Amino acid sequence: MKNQIPKSSSIGKNVIIEEGVRIGENVKIGDNTVVLKHTHVGDHVTIGCNCVLGIKPGGNKRMRNIQEKNESLIIQDYATIGNLVTIYSSTEIGKHVFIADHASIRENVQIEEGTVVGRGSIIELNTKIGKRCTIQTLAYITGDTVIEDDVFIGPCVSMSNDKYMGAKEYELKGPIIKEGAKIGNNATLLPGVMIGEKGIVGAGSVVTKDVRNNEVVVGVSAKKLQK
Amino acid sequence: MKNQIPKSSSIGKNVIIEEGVRIGENVKIGDNTVVLKHTHVGDHVTIGCNCVLGIKPGGNKRMRNIQEKNESLIIQDYATIGNLVTIYSSTEIGKHVFIADHASIRENVQIEEGTVVGRGSIIELNTKIGKRCTIQTLAYITGDTVIEDDVFIGPCVSMSNDKYMGAKEYELKGPIIKEGAKIGNNATLLPGVMIGEKGIVGAGSVVTKDVRNNEVVVGVSAKKLQK
Amino acid sequence: MKNQIPKSSSIGKNVIIEEGVRIGENVKIGDNTVVLKHTHVGDHVTIGCNCVLGIKPGGNKRMRNIQEKNESLIIQDYATIGNLVTIYSSTEIGKHVFIADHASIRENVQIEEGTVVGRGSIIELNTKIGKRCTIQTLAYITGDTVIEDDVFIGPCVSMSNDKYMGAKEYELKGPIIKEGAKIGNNATLLPGVMIGEKGIVGAGSVVTKDVRNNEVVVGVSAKKLQK
Repeated sequence: MKNQIPKSSSIGKNVIIEEGVRIGENVKIGDNTVVLKHTHVGDHVTIGCNCVLGIKPGGNKRMRNIQEKNESLIIQDYATIGNLVTIYSSTEIGKHVFIADHASIRENVQIEEGTVVGRGSIIELNTKIGKRCTIQTLAYITGDTVIEDDVFIGPCVSMSNDKYMGAKEYELKGPIIKEGAKIGNNATLLPGVMIGEKGIVGAGSVVTKDVRNNEVVVGVSAKKLQK
Repeated sequence: MKNQIPKSSSIGKNVIIEEGVRIGENVKIGDNTVVLKHTHVGDHVTIGCNCVLGIKPGGNKRMRNIQEKNESLIIQDYATIGNLVTIYSSTEIGKHVFIADHASIRENVQIEEGTVVGRGSIIELNTKIGKRCTIQTLAYITGDTVIEDDVFIGPCVSMSNDKYMGAKEYELKGPIIKEGAKIGNNATLLPGVMIGEKGIVGAGSVVTKDVRNNEVVVGVSAKKLQK
Repeated sequence: MKNQIPKSSSIGKNVIIEEGVRIGENVKIGDNTVVLKHTHVGDHVTIGCNCVLGIKPGGNKRMRNIQEKNESLIIQDYATIGNLVTIYSSTEIGKHVFIADHASIRENVQIEEGTVVGRGSIIELNTKIGKRCTIQTLAYITGDTVIEDDVFIGPCVSMSNDKYMGAKEYELKGPIIKEGAKIGNNATLLPGVMIGEKGIVGAGSVVTKDVRNNEVVVGVSAKKLQK
């Protein structure tokens, strides 16, 4: 497969590049990384060691079956992927995005320009994340979530998308987090809550209902902060 | 070692299979995976890339020394193991179990038929998990825990098994979670608490005492929900 | 590079050892591990499979630029590193330290003799951890944190170091956790809080202000426990 790789790009030892992969100019791929079928890697992309990129969704008979929109994982120019990262197919990683070590990103996810995804963070399927967001370490972004531009998600934030915890038929809904909102570390967001523009959720809070634009909420369950 | 592998099974590149490993029919193993001594892989099992399977317990002089019951890791038929997963020896993964990427499962663990273990979840030693459970993403199942059938553990749930946090001699006790119980995302369970059959713990709650059958508890510390 | 490795040490398959690496006597390195430039591995060190050690810091243009003090990762004698672990350069892992699987440790970190770092735990940059500490599974130690000797950090504990969540210029301050303090599982610590000597934080608590020596605090936000 070496013939697909431009001379300006450097590929580590024991790297596996499957068929249909495209590698741009000035790309660096670390040792032992696996790049699966039909992954497109843009120019000036850096990828660490021991990653697995372009994974096809699997599951057992109790898990929902996802129709993929697109077979390729697309990594845009100047993106950086750390070490021991997994990313699925049908996902797009925008320009200048930074994905830290041990992160995992599922299928049908879109992450826009300049966003940072922290170490050990997990982003589930069917999720859209805007520009210049910061998703900190070990944050959990559930499936079917919408995060607009310039959002800050603190470390260890937890979200869920299934109100009945598997007990009933229910259309899964993740949180909707509007432009410029900030979620403090280890906060808990319930399914489908909306956090308004520039809304702030205090560290360790449990958000059970919508937060208005510019509102600051804290506590369990989270209430408007009295000044 | 290639002579141990049936023709119906496909083994990726740079895979390491140590001595005494048994590989069943129609098995797929992804690239760069390491299968350590005495691991038994059943028929129709799928294993991802960059996993380490069959790890022997280690430790330093401050950690407890575990006597292993059985030297083998046993992976039953039709199980699916994701990418970058670690599983220890003396553990049994049941039929049709699904273990997602980045999960880690310690020694002396038993996981029964059809259970799903989420992405980045960690299951500590001496733990038993029943049939058709859902353990969601980044959940932490502490050591010495019992989870019965059809239990739902939400994302980022945290448990502990040491009441004195290392300060005194104490027999470690994890939670006991009875049939059909549901634990909301980012809930905290204290050592040895029992969650009764079909009991429900709200998201972000801190459970400090037992929950009765069919009871719904919420808050810090969690109390019976007033309707 | 095999000439740099003493005969008493054993190196697994597909291991990559870059230039300037020093390997001591009686070292074991598991399969598929990558040891990057200028890493120093002491005597009697055990390292698992699929690790990446000695990583140089990266980032995108929105992330802070760290000046490294020292180019080497130093792993002292008798340390044990699990599987799928990442450790950065300019960090020092002390004697008899145990780092469990899937853990990640950033640059400019010092971990002293006999400390245990749990499975999936993440330790951010510029952090100092004393002797004989226990950092349990999936705990998150933010950047610029000080942890003294004999501290216990429960599983899933979360910390943060940025009071304004990226909104203002601010000198980042992690928690300061004094000798013998204990933090319960899934507790949340805010930026710069000090936990006094032998202070105890209950499981699931949110600590918003300093805790005195020997004080026990619980709740959201955490208050002194009334006996």
